[in-house]
Amino acid sequence: MLSKAQIKYIQSLQHKKYRQKFGQFIAEGDKIVQELLQSGKDVQAVYATRDWLLDHRELAESATGMDVQEVEPPALKQLSSLSTPNQALALVNIPPASEPVLSGQVTIVLETIQDPGNLGTIIRIADWFGIRQIICSPDCVDAYNAKTIQSTMGSIMRIPVIVKDILELLAANKHIPSYAATLHGDNIAGTPKITEGLILIGNESRGLGEKVLALCSHRITIPRIGQAESLNAAVAAGIICGRLLI
Amino acid sequence: MLSKAQIKYIQSLQHKKYRQKFGQFIAEGDKIVQELLQSGKDVQAVYATRDWLLDHRELAESATGMDVQEVEPPALKQLSSLSTPNQALALVNIPPASEPVLSGQVTIVLETIQDPGNLGTIIRIADWFGIRQIICSPDCVDAYNAKTIQSTMGSIMRIPVIVKDILELLAANKHIPSYAATLHGDNIAGTPKITEGLILIGNESRGLGEKVLALCSHRITIPRIGQAESLNAAVAAGIICGRLLI
Repeated sequence: MLSKAQIKYIQSLQHKKYRQKFGQFIAEGDKIVQELLQSGKDVQAVYATRDWLLDHRELAESATGMDVQEVEPPALKQLSSLSTPNQALALVNIPPASEPVLSGQVTIVLETIQDPGNLGTIIRIADWFGIRQIICSPDCVDAYNAKTIQSTMGSIMRIPVIVKDILELLAANKHIPSYAATLHGDNIAGTPKITEGLILIGNESRGLGEKVLALCSHRITIPRIGQAESLNAAVAAGIICGRLLI
Repeated sequence: MLSKAQIKYIQSLQHKKYRQKFGQFIAEGDKIVQELLQSGKDVQAVYATRDWLLDHRELAESATGMDVQEVEPPALKQLSSLSTPNQALALVNIPPASEPVLSGQVTIVLETIQDPGNLGTIIRIADWFGIRQIICSPDCVDAYNAKTIQSTMGSIMRIPVIVKDILELLAANKHIPSYAATLHGDNIAGTPKITEGLILIGNESRGLGEKVLALCSHRITIPRIGQAESLNAAVAAGIICGRLLI
């Protein structure tokens, strides 16, 4: 059984402030917790219902060095910040901040992405297309938000999300080609496949800021044939990767 | 002020059963209600806060033949099924069912899409790429669900969603090329641009069913370079449109 202090601690991790203070986040859901148990990496504890632990007995028994506990469904619901309750939840260490490596690979760079679902979906897209890092401006939604984690479908364990000042990054790396997604650029259908560079996606309503645009070497556009005013930011990221990376 | 009967009626439209019975749905949100007032099309009533009506006075005054009413924010919240309350809400007539036209254009066909946000996002993608109709299997989530409407960002007013038995549709239209999204098909990067055909997207977990696949003329795949197990269904639809339509 979880103590009151443990419950309070886990609930505190629903807030970015405490995630940063304690260096941990909550990953919720059957699939992601299975992946975490398999990897073992950076996992501190797993709390799951009896049924879930029985269904994944071998996995749970093979988990060494982590606290695996059975929790009643109402208690698990109390720990969750998601509206649809899950059968399993894990406490995971936030990986230490790393420096991005920009040469020789493609990186997605996000400015002021606000929707946690969009960020999570973009991390999953990166993982599909073999992109190995994402850079976020400091005012993006936190990558360790429960909704972001859930939308990544496990990809958060493979793709580091690095928070950086984007203007400084671009100014210091002018030798790396940078592709800014905008409404008034070159048709992506005519843009050649790339193996090195930055793909920049901006805020859901405003797109990329003028200062960022001014520092990018290429402006690219998904041509609009119909009447929609815009595309969802994660969908736009997917379409661009689907043109520039394959 | 809204009567109790009006409130009860509007709340009933949160359920598919009553939307079908009364032939109306609720559209919520600043932007979509503005678009509805501009189009005037099929709108029965608009309920909005005083601030919203003041901000959009000309639009509201130009609206003829519809019931425009000021509603207090708590009353508006009571009418809403969304967690983030909106400033304006409209009652809209569900357009009459139409027969799809498959020749000479591209149509998106969805099998058992369950997530309302995914369906709405796919409707928005269709509207961006100039696709003029979407066909859903009868077991897809309802297109007039409040979350779907919100995710379409207004595109629901332009793109008819037609519910059809997909197996019958494919069997009766073998002369129309059909492109099934699957994990084991031809690389979409090598698939030529199309101007006629069906793009088929399957359920979020299971993909397209075997019976549907057997009736399709082409199987297409977004090649995976990294390790993600799958892509979000709406993102996959976007990537495929971004390869086959531009």
